[in-house]
Amino acid sequence: MASDGFKSLLKEKTSEAEKTVLSFLPEESGFQRDVAEAVNYGVRSGGKRLRPILMKEAFLMYGGQDPAIDAFMAAIEFIHNYSLIHDDLEAMDNDEYRRGIKTTHAVYGEGMGVLAGDALLNLVYEITSSQVMDSPDMETMKRRALAQHILADKAGINGMVGGQSADLSAEKRGEASEELLLFMDEKKTACLMEASLMAGAALAGASEDDIRSMEECGSAMGIAFQIRDDILDVTGSREEIGKDAGSDEKNGKMTYVSVYGLEECRRKVEELTDKALSILKDAGGDPGFLSDLIASLSGRSK
Amino acid sequence: MASDGFKSLLKEKTSEAEKTVLSFLPEESGFQRDVAEAVNYGVRSGGKRLRPILMKEAFLMYGGQDPAIDAFMAAIEFIHNYSLIHDDLEAMDNDEYRRGIKTTHAVYGEGMGVLAGDALLNLVYEITSSQVMDSPDMETMKRRALAQHILADKAGINGMVGGQSADLSAEKRGEASEELLLFMDEKKTACLMEASLMAGAALAGASEDDIRSMEECGSAMGIAFQIRDDILDVTGSREEIGKDAGSDEKNGKMTYVSVYGLEECRRKVEELTDKALSILKDAGGDPGFLSDLIASLSGRSK
Repeated sequence: MASDGFKSLLKEKTSEAEKTVLSFLPEESGFQRDVAEAVNYGVRSGGKRLRPILMKEAFLMYGGQDPAIDAFMAAIEFIHNYSLIHDDLEAMDNDEYRRGIKTTHAVYGEGMGVLAGDALLNLVYEITSSQVMDSPDMETMKRRALAQHILADKAGINGMVGGQSADLSAEKRGEASEELLLFMDEKKTACLMEASLMAGAALAGASEDDIRSMEECGSAMGIAFQIRDDILDVTGSREEIGKDAGSDEKNGKMTYVSVYGLEECRRKVEELTDKALSILKDAGGDPGFLSDLIASLSGRSK
Repeated sequence: MASDGFKSLLKEKTSEAEKTVLSFLPEESGFQRDVAEAVNYGVRSGGKRLRPILMKEAFLMYGGQDPAIDAFMAAIEFIHNYSLIHDDLEAMDNDEYRRGIKTTHAVYGEGMGVLAGDALLNLVYEITSSQVMDSPDMETMKRRALAQHILADKAGINGMVGGQSADLSAEKRGEASEELLLFMDEKKTACLMEASLMAGAALAGASEDDIRSMEECGSAMGIAFQIRDDILDVTGSREEIGKDAGSDEKNGKMTYVSVYGLEECRRKVEELTDKALSILKDAGGDPGFLSDLIASLSGRSK
C-alpha cells in the first residue's frame, strides 16, 4: 500500500522528530546522573516517534509557525516513553524486553525505573512551562497554554492513566465488556494520538472546531492502531513486534482479538481508518502526508 | 516555644489548607475509579499540609490576590503526596506504614501505587495549566506561568527527583560524603519548600529579587527540616513520627545524624533556622505568622 515516496518521506520525518526529541534530554552529570541515564536510555530505545510526527503534521496543516513546536513534540513523546517505562515495571506488566531490547527497569533496577518515569513525566511540564512562560506575546502564550493543557488532560486520570488503571483493575477482577474494552483503548492509546493532533493544531492557532475535529480523528486512528497492535500480538513475529508474540494471552489480557476474533478486528481497523481519513478530509486543512501516514498505520507490520 | 496563639492559628490555617487541597481531588467514578480511590487515599492520609500553608503565607506576605492560589496550593501538596506514594513502594523504601496508617501501595497493590503517583503528578499540571490558560489578563497569565514553571523545575530531575535518585544510588553503592548528603537534603526536601515560598511570591507578583530571597529562605528551612526529621528518626517514638523509629538505620541510610551525631545536628538546625528567619526579616514583606511557623519547625516533635 505505502509508496516508496511515502516511505522515504516517513523516514526523513522520523529522523527529524528523533533529533528534536533527543535534544530535550537531560545531561548525564551530577549526583542525579543515574536517573538521567535511565531516562535517556528509556527515550533512546524508543521506537517510531509517531506521536511527535502526528503533532508536527497537524501543526503544519494549520499553517503553524511557532518554534515552541519542538518542545511540544518532545513533550508528547516523553509522555509516551514514561508510560512505557512504568508499564514495563515488574509491578505492572513485568516485561523484560520491548522492541527487542531490555526495558529500563531491567537494566537500571525497579526503583530507578519508577524514578525515571517520574522524571520523564515531570520533564514534560518543565519544558512546556518554559515555553509558556517565555512567550513573545499574549496570543502565543494562550496557544501554548492551551496546548499544554491538552497534553495534561489527555495524559491524566481522565485520559491515559485512567485507561491504565481500568486495564489493571480489569485484569485483577477478570472483568470484560465491550464498553470497558473501548474505554481502555480510547484512554490508553487513542488519548495520546488525540493530544498529538490537537496540540499541534492549538499551537498553530487553529479554531476550536478544528481542534475538536483533530480529537475525533485521533480517536478513530488511535483505536484502529490499538486493535492492529492486538492483532500483531497474536500474528506477528518477535522480530516484527519487538517483544514476544502472545504476551497479551500470556498475561491473561482481554483484547479486541480475544473478544471479537481476528477477522472482525481487521474489519474494524479498516472502518476506523476510513473514518479518521474522512474527518481529516473534511477538516479544511491540507492533510497531505498525514493522510498517507494514517492509511499506512492500518497496514503496518511494526 | 510556640505560643497558644500560634498553635490555634496554625490549626486554623491547616484546616483551611486541607479543605483547599481536598477540593481538587478527582471523583471516584467511571472505569478509572480504582486509581481515583488510591489517589484520594494517598492525599487524604497526608499530614500537616505544610507546603500549601507556606505557599499561602508567602503569597499573603507579598499582597497576593489571585484566586489561582488555591489550585497552586493543591498542586504543591500533590507533588509532595505523589513523591511519598512512590517513595513508599516496595521497589523504593518498602514502607508499609506512614504517619501510623497503611501506605497507598500496601492497601491498593504495588501496580496501583505506581499509577496513583503518576495520576497525582500529572494532576498537578492539569490543574495549574487550567489556571494559566484561563487567566484574565497577560500580567496574571505571566505570574501563573512562572509559578507553574517554578513547581516543575523544583519537582524534577534537577530538583526533588534528582535528590531521590542520588539517595537510591548512594544506598546501592554505599557512597557517603558531606557534599552528597547536602545535595540529597537540598533536593529531596528543601526544593519543595523553596517551590512553595517562591510560587506563592510569584503568584502575588513579587520581584525577581524577592522570589530569590524566598528560594534562599526555603533552602535553609528545608535543610533544617530534614535534619530535624533525621534526628526524630533516631529519638522519636512511633506515635510521634508515624512510622517505626530507626527506619533510616534499618534501611542503611546515610543521614546527617549517622554522619555528624545528634549534638552537631541540633546545632545545625538552630543555625539554619536563624538563617531562614533572618532572610525573611530582610525580604521586605510582613512575615508575621510565617516567621513563627519556621521557628516552630525547629522544635517540632511531629
